[in-house]
Amino acid sequence: SSAPSPIPATLFPGDGIGPEIAEAVKQVFQAAEVPIEWEEHYVGDQIDPRTQSFLTWESLESVRRNKVGLKGPMATPIGKGHRSLNLTLRKELNLYANVRPCYSLPGYKTRYDNVDLITIRENTEGEYSGLEHQVVRGVVESIKIITRQASLRVAEYAFHYAKTHGRERVSAIHKANIMQKTDGLFLKCCREVAEKYPEITYEEVVIDNCCMMLVKNPALFDVLVMPNLYGDIISDLCAGLIGGLGLTPSCNIGEGGIALAEAVHGSAPDIAGKNMANPTALLLSAVTMLRHLELNHKAERIQNAILTTIAEGKYRTADLGGSSSTTDFTKAICGHL
Amino acid sequence: SSAPSPIPATLFPGDGIGPEIAEAVKQVFQAAEVPIEWEEHYVGDQIDPRTQSFLTWESLESVRRNKVGLKGPMATPIGKGHRSLNLTLRKELNLYANVRPCYSLPGYKTRYDNVDLITIRENTEGEYSGLEHQVVRGVVESIKIITRQASLRVAEYAFHYAKTHGRERVSAIHKANIMQKTDGLFLKCCREVAEKYPEITYEEVVIDNCCMMLVKNPALFDVLVMPNLYGDIISDLCAGLIGGLGLTPSCNIGEGGIALAEAVHGSAPDIAGKNMANPTALLLSAVTMLRHLELNHKAERIQNAILTTIAEGKYRTADLGGSSSTTDFTKAICGHL
Ligand SMILES: CC(C)[C@H](C(=O)O)[C@@H](O)C(=O)O
Ligand SMILES: CC(C)[C@H](C(=O)O)[C@@H](O)C(=O)O
Repeated sequence: SSAPSPIPATLFPGDGIGPEIAEAVKQVFQAAEVPIEWEEHYVGDQIDPRTQSFLTWESLESVRRNKVGLKGPMATPIGKGHRSLNLTLRKELNLYANVRPCYSLPGYKTRYDNVDLITIRENTEGEYSGLEHQVVRGVVESIKIITRQASLRVAEYAFHYAKTHGRERVSAIHKANIMQKTDGLFLKCCREVAEKYPEITYEEVVIDNCCMMLVKNPALFDVLVMPNLYGDIISDLCAGLIGGLGLTPSCNIGEGGIALAEAVHGSAPDIAGKNMANPTALLLSAVTMLRHLELNHKAERIQNAILTTIAEGKYRTADLGGSSSTTDFTKAICGHL
Repeated sequence: SSAPSPIPATLFPGDGIGPEIAEAVKQVFQAAEVPIEWEEHYVGDQIDPRTQSFLTWESLESVRRNKVGLKGPMATPIGKGHRSLNLTLRKELNLYANVRPCYSLPGYKTRYDNVDLITIRENTEGEYSGLEHQVVRGVVESIKIITRQASLRVAEYAFHYAKTHGRERVSAIHKANIMQKTDGLFLKCCREVAEKYPEITYEEVVIDNCCMMLVKNPALFDVLVMPNLYGDIISDLCAGLIGGLGLTPSCNIGEGGIALAEAVHGSAPDIAGKNMANPTALLLSAVTMLRHLELNHKAERIQNAILTTIAEGKYRTADLGGSSSTTDFTKAICGHL
């Protein structure tokens, strides 16, 4: 039998610790014989007028062509006249849903056990519209936009995800008691989609109450779907429950079947190049990419090797209280494949 | 020596469990010989055109005259043509700062020990402007307003609070990386005020990161000041850390020295009239009212009696895992005065 031809995927190592943790992914994928061929793209050193950012047009074209990619942390260069790298990716690739699974890692103790949450965030509009202005001196406003189209799209994704992942409940998070029109429209769209999924329990929870319940008892929730800013807030809160952004995967879903997985933590310039970074978030993100490609067997194997390594506790990076280097931790994972 | 003449204060028992927990406050105040004379006001049964809500004009006049008040939970009646009771109070009385202390109750175990946080929320503008409209079919917007005046006012209150309460740090919570104009103006105002308080450490924390840090390690924070919606979210999150809204006091500060303390939990119609409700949040709110009146000795005595009763654990209401009635719990507190 001949080897399957490799699947091309875009890799943005990013900056700071990005290249080191991207290297960890490459090694683990190689050890697991994942049939992926990486197309590496770096953030450019000047503004590309076609993207209005330091991201090159070629790198966006690469994701559009491959439809799958993996992204490390990118620090947006300071200065005017260009767009944030993360926001450019979301806008240009129309990454409409940001999916962040968040589960307790066996053997890594936090205040919470058995957390198992999926936050699904609308990723293109809401409070991130960029529409802001000064009304008169000392009075400024920003505009939150909610559309029927984007709300239906993310709600549809959330229910479909719940159904295909054996999940039982979808909670729509909102503040429609105050923002009756915007969050009201979001809820209306969620209700419409919920009707098509009678097997999934649907509920609506006000964001303030949701945050209180999450810290009291995260087991009350399953899949959560919400407008952009609430998703930004709740997904970080959920990450905090299990140890932080260094441990949680993220995947962005775009129109036309694009999936761009990413580590959402920062680029940690203070430890960059020191072989100290924890590659877990990027590795688990890479696993979500494999599931998107339906390489489920490989995904499972790699995920198990990561979780086993962390559970054993012999090799842990400094952020998890250990003293392993990035490379030793990575080798340990490869040893568990 | 003659008895000091009593200080008039407005009391809104509210509805649902409101009257029962308000009765608890009255009894504890009587037992502690607090020189307060309550002026009771109930929510009306028809819309008062002068307030556009079910709150009567007379009840608002009472707070304006007395400058101090205590408010139980109020469920806004469903229907059109009137304003929410809570929002009417905030707007009409110009309650610009909502102060929510949040501390672990000795003997009442949650996942967190030694929580001691103060959230100070801008309470009049931001996402609560009420400005919303449909742009075209399927596209709606709501407008967040930030003003220099309201931001300076709440920042000033937060730093003054920190200084007069022996606090060391004020953290301004924001999302200015996305809402550069609105949250940017809020931060600018906080910075201006911070300069006048060199003895207080000032920092700025992005809201998503703040929520993650709060669940990982709440001891990182001290006093937190923020725009309206972030305050709504973060104060509930903080309440969750120590057991929920049934245990946390709240006080609204208005122009002209008004202080309206309130229990921020719901009216719990399911247990109303059953002598089961926990009066702790309203009692602790009443304590903040006493401190505002500089009746510090009485405030201290009552607070100690509440905390001792909860710590002993013999009398606890159902929400805290006990089986005491509201009246027995209240008697136990009076016994500790
Ligand atoms: C860096 C920032 C613009 C971004 C966001 O607000 O979306 C980040 O917090 C995230 O969650 O990816
Ligand atoms: C009931 C609701 C309008 C209110 C708010 O959003 O401010 C509540 O959550 C609060 O915190 O007092």
